[in-house]
Amino acid sequence: MNIDLKKYILDVPNFPIHGIGFKDITPLLNNKDAFKTAINLMIKDFKDKGVTKVAGIDSRGFILSAPAAYALNAGFVPVRKKGKLPRSTYCEKFAYEYDEAHLEIHTDAFSPADKILLIDDVLATGGTAEAAVKLIKKSGAELIGISFLLEISFLKGIDKLDKNLIKTIIRY
Amino acid sequence: MNIDLKKYILDVPNFPIHGIGFKDITPLLNNKDAFKTAINLMIKDFKDKGVTKVAGIDSRGFILSAPAAYALNAGFVPVRKKGKLPRSTYCEKFAYEYDEAHLEIHTDAFSPADKILLIDDVLATGGTAEAAVKLIKKSGAELIGISFLLEISFLKGIDKLDKNLIKTIIRY
Repeated sequence: MNIDLKKYILDVPNFPIHGIGFKDITPLLNNKDAFKTAINLMIKDFKDKGVTKVAGIDSRGFILSAPAAYALNAGFVPVRKKGKLPRSTYCEKFAYEYDEAHLEIHTDAFSPADKILLIDDVLATGGTAEAAVKLIKKSGAELIGISFLLEISFLKGIDKLDKNLIKTIIRY
Repeated sequence: MNIDLKKYILDVPNFPIHGIGFKDITPLLNNKDAFKTAINLMIKDFKDKGVTKVAGIDSRGFILSAPAAYALNAGFVPVRKKGKLPRSTYCEKFAYEYDEAHLEIHTDAFSPADKILLIDDVLATGGTAEAAVKLIKKSGAELIGISFLLEISFLKGIDKLDKNLIKTIIRY
């Protein structure tokens, strides 16, 4: 299906804090064709790569990564904000545009035999994805790709990541 | 596929606070067959009901509801914790086992023509789902079903909801 996905992304100024421009993807999620097209484009390059698990970042990232896992016949691993996972975790601190936080995965989430596709909604400063990549590496699993719906290019998040692994659907 | 899904749910005592027993669904998500089976069972009864949008509750609910929307060829609407949605919202307060909070949806998320399937991971006291149902009703859309992966029966959450609408896969 040929859909202009950008027309389903809304610019919301000064959210969540003054001076930050927010890309609201809820109109894209709301439209069944835009939603399905976005997921299918995000996984297209990874269909024949033997992905065993998709890792999704808390919490908007879950909305894109969980369907990707379903469509790829892979398991799903939540990369969560600190304190949300109930058992033993690896933890990484990261800074983002307007704050800092920690991400965690369960220590038994991945095995070294796993091939991981990491998915999030937006690549901005790259701090979140960089922390998620570190968590996956701690587990010994192989990261075979990172797929974003949106990239905010001027924030240069791509410099924190391995460019060869990255796929982005919409660029600003 | 014939899978005993219960064997992928872990009991974690005293999480997130002392005295609360937590049902950890991450092992189920982690296993590709258990994950796909769970989603398929959650949507089975709603496949021929003309679902136009799936509403998923922040944030573990996203992991089950977003694949359900994908599989049903429906749009996806996040029911979010307060302050996460950037535009005009409806808001409902609710109490849960150990705290209270607010849920929101965008006021333009649903139209009266929409047929909604609401999905969350766990039916416990029912407070969260009850608030989400109120939000859907405020929008004028038709709620045609509520699907949970787990039900903790002794908490009697079902008494806060319309029993005819509910589907549960695993019961404790």
